[in-house]
Amino acid sequence: MSESKLQLVLKTAKGTKDWADKDMVIRQHIFETLTKIFKKHGAITIDTPVFELKEILQGKYGEDSKLIYDLKDQGGELCSLRYDLTVPFARFVAMNNLDKIKRYHIAKVYRRDQPAMTKGRMREFYQCDFDVAGTYDAMIPDSEVMSILVDGLTSLGIDDFKIKLNHRKILDGIFQIAGVKDEDIRKISSAVDKLDKAPWEDVKKEITVEKGQTEEVAEIIGKYVKLKGSLQEVIEILEKDEGILANEKAMEGLKDIKLLKDYVESMEIDSYISFDLSLARGLDYYTGLIYEAVTAASAPPKDAQEKKEQALKEKSSKKSKKAAKNAGEEDDASAYVGVGSIAAGGRYDNLVAMFSEATGKKNSPQIPCVGVSFGVERIFSIIKARSNLDKISSVSTQVYVMAFGGGPEWNGLTSDRLRILKKLWDNGIEAEHMYKGKVNPRKQFDAAEKSGAQIAVILGKEEYLEEGKLRIKKLGPEYSDDDGELVDAKDFVQLVQTKLAEMKEANGGLDEITKLVKGI
Amino acid sequence: MSESKLQLVLKTAKGTKDWADKDMVIRQHIFETLTKIFKKHGAITIDTPVFELKEILQGKYGEDSKLIYDLKDQGGELCSLRYDLTVPFARFVAMNNLDKIKRYHIAKVYRRDQPAMTKGRMREFYQCDFDVAGTYDAMIPDSEVMSILVDGLTSLGIDDFKIKLNHRKILDGIFQIAGVKDEDIRKISSAVDKLDKAPWEDVKKEITVEKGQTEEVAEIIGKYVKLKGSLQEVIEILEKDEGILANEKAMEGLKDIKLLKDYVESMEIDSYISFDLSLARGLDYYTGLIYEAVTAASAPPKDAQEKKEQALKEKSSKKSKKAAKNAGEEDDASAYVGVGSIAAGGRYDNLVAMFSEATGKKNSPQIPCVGVSFGVERIFSIIKARSNLDKISSVSTQVYVMAFGGGPEWNGLTSDRLRILKKLWDNGIEAEHMYKGKVNPRKQFDAAEKSGAQIAVILGKEEYLEEGKLRIKKLGPEYSDDDGELVDAKDFVQLVQTKLAEMKEANGGLDEITKLVKGI
Repeated sequence: MSESKLQLVLKTAKGTKDWADKDMVIRQHIFETLTKIFKKHGAITIDTPVFELKEILQGKYGEDSKLIYDLKDQGGELCSLRYDLTVPFARFVAMNNLDKIKRYHIAKVYRRDQPAMTKGRMREFYQCDFDVAGTYDAMIPDSEVMSILVDGLTSLGIDDFKIKLNHRKILDGIFQIAGVKDEDIRKISSAVDKLDKAPWEDVKKEITVEKGQTEEVAEIIGKYVKLKGSLQEVIEILEKDEGILANEKAMEGLKDIKLLKDYVESMEIDSYISFDLSLARGLDYYTGLIYEAVTAASAPPKDAQEKKEQALKEKSSKKSKKAAKNAGEEDDASAYVGVGSIAAGGRYDNLVAMFSEATGKKNSPQIPCVGVSFGVERIFSIIKARSNLDKISSVSTQVYVMAFGGGPEWNGLTSDRLRILKKLWDNGIEAEHMYKGKVNPRKQFDAAEKSGAQIAVILGKEEYLEEGKLRIKKLGPEYSDDDGELVDAKDFVQLVQTKLAEMKEANGGLDEITKLVKGI
Repeated sequence: MSESKLQLVLKTAKGTKDWADKDMVIRQHIFETLTKIFKKHGAITIDTPVFELKEILQGKYGEDSKLIYDLKDQGGELCSLRYDLTVPFARFVAMNNLDKIKRYHIAKVYRRDQPAMTKGRMREFYQCDFDVAGTYDAMIPDSEVMSILVDGLTSLGIDDFKIKLNHRKILDGIFQIAGVKDEDIRKISSAVDKLDKAPWEDVKKEITVEKGQTEEVAEIIGKYVKLKGSLQEVIEILEKDEGILANEKAMEGLKDIKLLKDYVESMEIDSYISFDLSLARGLDYYTGLIYEAVTAASAPPKDAQEKKEQALKEKSSKKSKKAAKNAGEEDDASAYVGVGSIAAGGRYDNLVAMFSEATGKKNSPQIPCVGVSFGVERIFSIIKARSNLDKISSVSTQVYVMAFGGGPEWNGLTSDRLRILKKLWDNGIEAEHMYKGKVNPRKQFDAAEKSGAQIAVILGKEEYLEEGKLRIKKLGPEYSDDDGELVDAKDFVQLVQTKLAEMKEANGGLDEITKLVKGI
């Protein structure tokens, strides 16, 4: 017992992990794909610190605030790790008195939540956010954000998704129609948000028994929030509904939705959208359109409840056996949760002004914002689950430099190899060699194969030392008969480039990671 | 007083800052340039969490450990923000039982140090690390790392740097020759390391008065550590030195240096290197070659001491006036420090085994490592100080879509604009429009100019609605006479692409950020 205490356990902290090799290649490809899309829409990028002053984050996340990581008080300011990229963005806009900005931000955020590692639900994870701040005409930036959402997912080979969409003003209108008091709206809203995971009966019970609304109120809410379908279908129903027609807030929202319908039809992305009146989203700061993209992997497994109970039973039996104090640190919910939404966002028109006003400025201008956030690890888990990674290489090596020779004075020509390598590097060519003086050819070919190099540049003892020649040979099983071509050592680079171009053309020109993600 | 307490101060935490606009363009260019170089050398990339278990970092940084940020104990594991990328790398290698790996890692690290923001010395900053782990022949990976260091800085337009280089075994040998006890070596070493900032007399005083060595010991140390010059020059002196010749450790180091000299000469990077026996480097874990790159901006200003005293005086006078409690948080040392080294590294052969052994494994294999770390913010500050950023654009917009028209039924053709934009986006073209329904042409041209777009796609009321035509016009003062070209709306994309290619060719084909960094 005391011995194990002295020993270090080599691990990463709970809910975090190292990324390497092919996983990194996929994740980098996700970043690059999304970055290219964000840039297509004229966004700049910003980078804010990983930690913010604690008070910047306070009061922004409702009951999720308990999941915020704080830094230890080591003297000086009290700080917390950022929980999302939206609040730091709003702080940035307010702090710099910007009246408009279009930005993307790809960075890590932190939540002390129950992890489900294989489902991409982690304590340290990336968000890829695109947001438009500024006062514009209704639904024009919003519809562009929807098109970015579609472009982002389809570019990553995900086509079987649905965008659940709703409008906070319509939702709030419904609660008013049902007779919910204004101060109760957010908590009833969060009950309704559970409709994707629980049957209406459970949600109704929460609304009435737990949250004190009458049966009648619940029934009216139920009538509306069970509505979903295409924008066209649900608009038609709402336009004939007397409750909606008489409610100012709901009508404002409906006007937005009708405009949005025109715009997404013009962009031919309407087929992805499901207008779903049960979507509420947890965060307090949304004020208009809200949406989230889901796929088949988003939902928990059918037997989630059983699996969860099983996991809890195992955990408590471990505890009763007085297992190591932090066995609980190993908990993982992967068995009984789904991937969840893979991208989500909405309109938040008051967050920037909230910051400006908190600094004591009177009459701070409202800076309306709308944005979307892609959940990279969740998207990653979907791509990885469906892909064969065999062909992906995590290194870019194109050329392997080797030296063949022997005899008593043979030294492996290390200095000469380095001279050759330097020329390749200076010409932008990815090239490696074995970090050894004397090695036999077999080992060098094996190392070249492992590196994924396509060309060998060989310093043969006689060829190089007596004739000043290098041998350039194509690698790979299909070129096993290729003896290579001799070339003057002083202009070998051009021949290497020619052969690399030939091989790239033979391979179809597309890199393996693009083929994999696109399912080609 | 009480009012100001209620008000939020919108700021980032001490020693951290937001990055945006052109600064981001420069920094991204640094990342991309270094990434390309790292990939040329066959490295994979890894990503480790921002925080590690506290015990992983403990005992690795000597007296700098006090600068580590800890997370608050909120239940569960105790964690700290990473201090560098080297210790997490060694943890990764040990945890995965790797016997070799070549990796690069570009990520933020955290140090609770006195910031000097305009000199790129911050509490949150990026490191760009390249490391080779594995058992190889002497100096082969080391010399490749030196070539990466040279390639990295010259590719970023920095040519006027010097690599100060030394060998821990030679340094330790010198201390043995002088008669320093083994247990005192590291503290004498850190005194010697100050020779780049202080005269020998001050260093000698520290060695004798503060650190208890005799005058004689100090004199012998002084004789050696004042030596510096080309590899050739210093090797010649050491090879004739009887003390060195009789010291086993120093001779081992010298053998390495002689081999290195051959290799760096083969790669023609020897002219950058200054063999400087006073270089010691603070970190405990180095065991062989150590080096750091410096430029003219690295040193503090000549009147640093006066400026520092001035700053301290101002600070204490503020305090005496009972200024706000955390006025101290604003301290910045930019006025009296230099940029410091802009890249540094060395060989650390024992760090991985230290982790393996701490887990209780007996006879863990030694995994020797060598690497280099680029200080991005410091390099950034040099590039920014010498550059004219006027031509740099922080957005990539190529095309601006406009609608011209008027009259009572004019609606701005928003849906049509979105249809046109979607086609551009789908073809990978960066395109924007104004997020407004009806806007006059002047405002649209102004917005296009601000966006940096090169081409306007214009929906003219009659041309578009009656003839189904779009007008494609080049933008910019040199094309003010261009009335544009009418094209069928269904195949306008090709004409846009042709015109963009023409304009790119006219511009020389090089992007502005490359021209700026390279000083073209």
